[in-house]
Amino acid sequence: MCHKKYDMNRITALFGIRQPIIQGGMVWNSGWRLASAVSNSGGLGLLGAGSMPPDVLEEHIAKCRQATMQPFGVNLPLMYAGVEEQIRVIIRGKVPVVFTSAGSPKTYTSLLHQHGVKVAHVTSSLKFALKAQEASVDAVVAEGFEAGGHNGKEETTTFCLIPNIKKHVSVPVIAAGGIATGQQMLAAQILGADGVQIGSRFAVTRESSAHERFKTAVVNAREGDTFLTLKEITPVRLLKNNFFYETEKIYAAHGVKEDLVRLLGKGRARKGMFEGDTDEGELEIGQCASLIDDIPSVEEVFRRLNEEYQTALNNIR
Amino acid sequence: MCHKKYDMNRITALFGIRQPIIQGGMVWNSGWRLASAVSNSGGLGLLGAGSMPPDVLEEHIAKCRQATMQPFGVNLPLMYAGVEEQIRVIIRGKVPVVFTSAGSPKTYTSLLHQHGVKVAHVTSSLKFALKAQEASVDAVVAEGFEAGGHNGKEETTTFCLIPNIKKHVSVPVIAAGGIATGQQMLAAQILGADGVQIGSRFAVTRESSAHERFKTAVVNAREGDTFLTLKEITPVRLLKNNFFYETEKIYAAHGVKEDLVRLLGKGRARKGMFEGDTDEGELEIGQCASLIDDIPSVEEVFRRLNEEYQTALNNIR
Repeated sequence: MCHKKYDMNRITALFGIRQPIIQGGMVWNSGWRLASAVSNSGGLGLLGAGSMPPDVLEEHIAKCRQATMQPFGVNLPLMYAGVEEQIRVIIRGKVPVVFTSAGSPKTYTSLLHQHGVKVAHVTSSLKFALKAQEASVDAVVAEGFEAGGHNGKEETTTFCLIPNIKKHVSVPVIAAGGIATGQQMLAAQILGADGVQIGSRFAVTRESSAHERFKTAVVNAREGDTFLTLKEITPVRLLKNNFFYETEKIYAAHGVKEDLVRLLGKGRARKGMFEGDTDEGELEIGQCASLIDDIPSVEEVFRRLNEEYQTALNNIR
Repeated sequence: MCHKKYDMNRITALFGIRQPIIQGGMVWNSGWRLASAVSNSGGLGLLGAGSMPPDVLEEHIAKCRQATMQPFGVNLPLMYAGVEEQIRVIIRGKVPVVFTSAGSPKTYTSLLHQHGVKVAHVTSSLKFALKAQEASVDAVVAEGFEAGGHNGKEETTTFCLIPNIKKHVSVPVIAAGGIATGQQMLAAQILGADGVQIGSRFAVTRESSAHERFKTAVVNAREGDTFLTLKEITPVRLLKNNFFYETEKIYAAHGVKEDLVRLLGKGRARKGMFEGDTDEGELEIGQCASLIDDIPSVEEVFRRLNEEYQTALNNIR
């Protein structure tokens, strides 16, 4: 999407950015350093509000604004208790873009629009993409089964979801799930995406706020090392570690949802990704972990994405 | 892959075909009518030996040879009792190509090679693709999680599997899983595929030997209507129907593998796909069922694949 024909498209125009590359607003990974670096590189950086109480979010918004002149946004899961206060912080901070997820886009989209905030909503099925469009969102994120972290119940993959959603919605479609290279960006574009949201690749950069041990665990991951589990609670894609194998033991023993809830407890995601307990923490990452082999800077990731995209494009010309 | 640069590539050269489009050799769908129609259209048709005793397979090979002058092949699952006799039939019938699956490629590849048969092996993970290459297969099929029917335990999607396998193996890679349109063919090619294997789209053609009620059920399927289940036996992607919901009840009641084996019984796939009992049969189909809206001829499918491919290519030029 760095080919000249795509330098200006519906996504770049919508968000006022140079390239239709959005960084996933991932819990414990996406603070102001990552978001501002992405926005400075020409994409759209997102703060991951899912792991930020309102005061922390306010601080990150202020620091992000200091670190970049470019537009940035906030990823806001709608299912937590503090969401109304987070929205007040976002409006007060004049954040230009919000990506909402895990909840109904009907609840806050018009309020955000009233304050001039652009809204994209993350969906994992055609049904919810249509509902998001009905709720007047400015764009939908179509996130496939291969994505890291929380995920949909339909298990539809990026390869099948993007063409399907593109066929039935008229708002711009941002492809997410499994995208870590410029080659994959071009493939997503061919499948119908107007832009891409990239999570895992940005989680494993110098500017990501995740713990070095988490980043290293992803670098070492191979194909088959992630799995979608805890479907009885909320489906989540994780790197297989001791915590994951403990959940497997519960499944093997025909345990019930309560056993899983008890095992999961509180703070597992923080423990794994932020504190670096790679054995007992929840390590949320996508299937493209197998394509991630180092911990570069955000600038270097953008350089590679562009180069890989151009090479892939030249190969089929 | 119909663009002139790809008219001759490693897959067309390997199999002596005009376009690198292989039809999946699906049980109860892929008899001589379907395989010969695909080969006559310039792709590689495969007979689905998984639902053919040796004498039936012999008959289909003979009829396929009468119906086309072009190369065709047999898809051979290696896990059934009659496989040695099937291989004798294949060699005796001078079938030029065999696609093996569900078993070790080490066992029969050299025997088939001795008789001049080209061998491709179906894999769902990098690990097994590397083993297939070690076993000297001529190509690997990299089949993603979105594929219909039997599937891998790693649950890696086409979008992530193709680039990963392409990066690590040197033999030609055939992408499978979720591919029903020419747009998706181009996307698969960009991800690294030398050719594509298309199953569901060919299952729902006039020449497919599946029952009309099965074909109609696929036409009516929407995004989210298939699911990978029966993982304790062999993971299989099915259209959700009454049989599927019966399996769900067993899972909800924390049933054991034996309960599932008992429910599955024998002949469910035949019942669903060949006899047309769409309530109680096993309806094996991929996630791209949602992209399939009619029951055209094979010739028409090829016309569309080419047109969609060319349109997608023109859109990014």
